[in-house]
Amino acid sequence: MSEEFQTIQSIGSKGLLEKISNYDAFKNEKVTQSIGDDAAVIKEDGGNLTLLSSDTYVEGVDFDPTYTPFNHLGYKILSAGVSDIYAMNGKPEAVLVNLAVPNRMSVQMVEDLYQGIYAAGKLHEVEVVGGDLKANHANLVVSISVYGKVDEEHITYRKGANEGDAICITGDLGGALAGLRILMREKKFWEEHGDESIQPELGDYQFVVKRQLVPEARKDLVDTLREQNFIPTSMIDITKGLVSEVNSISEASDLGAYIYQAALPIAIETRQVADEMQEDVDRYALFGGEDLELMFTLSEEKVEEFVNHFNDFVVIGRMVPKEEGMKMQTAEGDVVSFDDLS
Amino acid sequence: MSEEFQTIQSIGSKGLLEKISNYDAFKNEKVTQSIGDDAAVIKEDGGNLTLLSSDTYVEGVDFDPTYTPFNHLGYKILSAGVSDIYAMNGKPEAVLVNLAVPNRMSVQMVEDLYQGIYAAGKLHEVEVVGGDLKANHANLVVSISVYGKVDEEHITYRKGANEGDAICITGDLGGALAGLRILMREKKFWEEHGDESIQPELGDYQFVVKRQLVPEARKDLVDTLREQNFIPTSMIDITKGLVSEVNSISEASDLGAYIYQAALPIAIETRQVADEMQEDVDRYALFGGEDLELMFTLSEEKVEEFVNHFNDFVVIGRMVPKEEGMKMQTAEGDVVSFDDLS
Repeated sequence: MSEEFQTIQSIGSKGLLEKISNYDAFKNEKVTQSIGDDAAVIKEDGGNLTLLSSDTYVEGVDFDPTYTPFNHLGYKILSAGVSDIYAMNGKPEAVLVNLAVPNRMSVQMVEDLYQGIYAAGKLHEVEVVGGDLKANHANLVVSISVYGKVDEEHITYRKGANEGDAICITGDLGGALAGLRILMREKKFWEEHGDESIQPELGDYQFVVKRQLVPEARKDLVDTLREQNFIPTSMIDITKGLVSEVNSISEASDLGAYIYQAALPIAIETRQVADEMQEDVDRYALFGGEDLELMFTLSEEKVEEFVNHFNDFVVIGRMVPKEEGMKMQTAEGDVVSFDDLS
Repeated sequence: MSEEFQTIQSIGSKGLLEKISNYDAFKNEKVTQSIGDDAAVIKEDGGNLTLLSSDTYVEGVDFDPTYTPFNHLGYKILSAGVSDIYAMNGKPEAVLVNLAVPNRMSVQMVEDLYQGIYAAGKLHEVEVVGGDLKANHANLVVSISVYGKVDEEHITYRKGANEGDAICITGDLGGALAGLRILMREKKFWEEHGDESIQPELGDYQFVVKRQLVPEARKDLVDTLREQNFIPTSMIDITKGLVSEVNSISEASDLGAYIYQAALPIAIETRQVADEMQEDVDRYALFGGEDLELMFTLSEEKVEEFVNHFNDFVVIGRMVPKEEGMKMQTAEGDVVSFDDLS
């Protein structure tokens, strides 16, 4: 084994996780899905399935407390946590919250964080059943673990998409990134102009700022799927950005994908921010993460039926044979490879 | 609500968690035990129980990388995680590991950490089924969440102890703290004498250093309880120290406790370290944490039977009526209150 210092950046967190998951480790036969989907899946004795997922949020990396109120942070963390369970077509039941808390945080700040967690918990009907609170001499680090349930009939993996399936997206894309761009701009303004300056007016940007700070996990889609007895062939939530999620579904399903740029759902407010920043709004939609929308695949016939029951989604493309690769038809009619998009 | 900055230290993490758990939050009727035991307990449809627990370890607070090899750290974190499941008389099945990793850590260091996790995972037959890897600009923070199972017949809470029950402890106490004292002394020596000094010989202290760095969770006790069909009336693992754990069992069971100082199980190696440090070894046993031993209560008759099947435990006291409080009979025969022990 090499004695050289190999940085994690040089292989990326995905590369590192691949290295690690190739180790010789104990395998539990009850585990039907380990690392590699939105949540791990474990078979219970009764035949139903347990879903487990967890995420970490690092101050200064994943959130900036200068523009993130702690109650919003709590709300977002719980929402993102349950979103992983929804992405498996499951129902979140309980969460554990772990905090490493620097001593510049007051009791009130931690209470605010929990108020946000509890507010989102009510909405998604999950109980905070445990966790840990430790002192940290450095920054705030929050981990959340989510426990959810689904039965074998309804579970939706990334790997189930079929050739010809429509690729569907709830809501709209790029809003969370647009909100982040605004908050970063305002932070820069505060830093340059100091405390004596007038507080910025975020009212005009309320839509996108909310998309960034208090995103909503799409319980409504999963509830409707259940009520109307539709089961997507695959599903994933939008946390890393559309291109990344389409790649994940395609890779897991051993297929290619063909996306129509003109079909990308983008809110007018998101467009306005991109215009103001003189940036390309389609890039927000393709690469912006954290929207917590759900992307799912369904046969064309099923889409035509489902639209009668749920209308906050659009079809943005089709699953195609693997040989056809990952392509996007631009608004101008050109066809570009995902590899050329970056 | 007060606008003053109230430090977390001023109310303690326990006080803060109490504040938080009094909030108006969603309650899931499937949750039969929330915050307040070694693990949360959730009832499955089939009738069996799911156990969930999670812990956080902060570099510079919970571990010091100058004397903690990363593979040991991984081993210890997994062992402490499964210990919470054993404390409920359960079987650990799977874990999720979350890392916030500073960029001064190499790929090899993270691999070492996982090697330790996997080594302990094999021993305890748990699979690493997921988690998260994030960059941190500050220190290493590790969270582990453990999923375990137990049936309703075997689950052991903190709250089930009966008056007259014997208080039993596996293994021995204070070893992990003795190991920590040695490692801290050696660190100070290195810092004062620099790199040119001879590496210290830890061979004489191998027993206690191992107790600190690679403690063993007591799977053997839980396996034997199951095989021989014994069910403790209550159980907890030794992570905060004996006095704290006896208090937790007594409080949860609404009883008092009477402990015999002379009965505290202390290894000869632990005594030698305390002597060398000119410290009181009984304080190591009473207040030292992280031993990962199990403390359990059982009726006297059952203890007499159980000793035929498992011999690495001793009786250190009895559960008494609540009115009699928390007391310890010293080796000299005096009776002191827990409150006077600190």
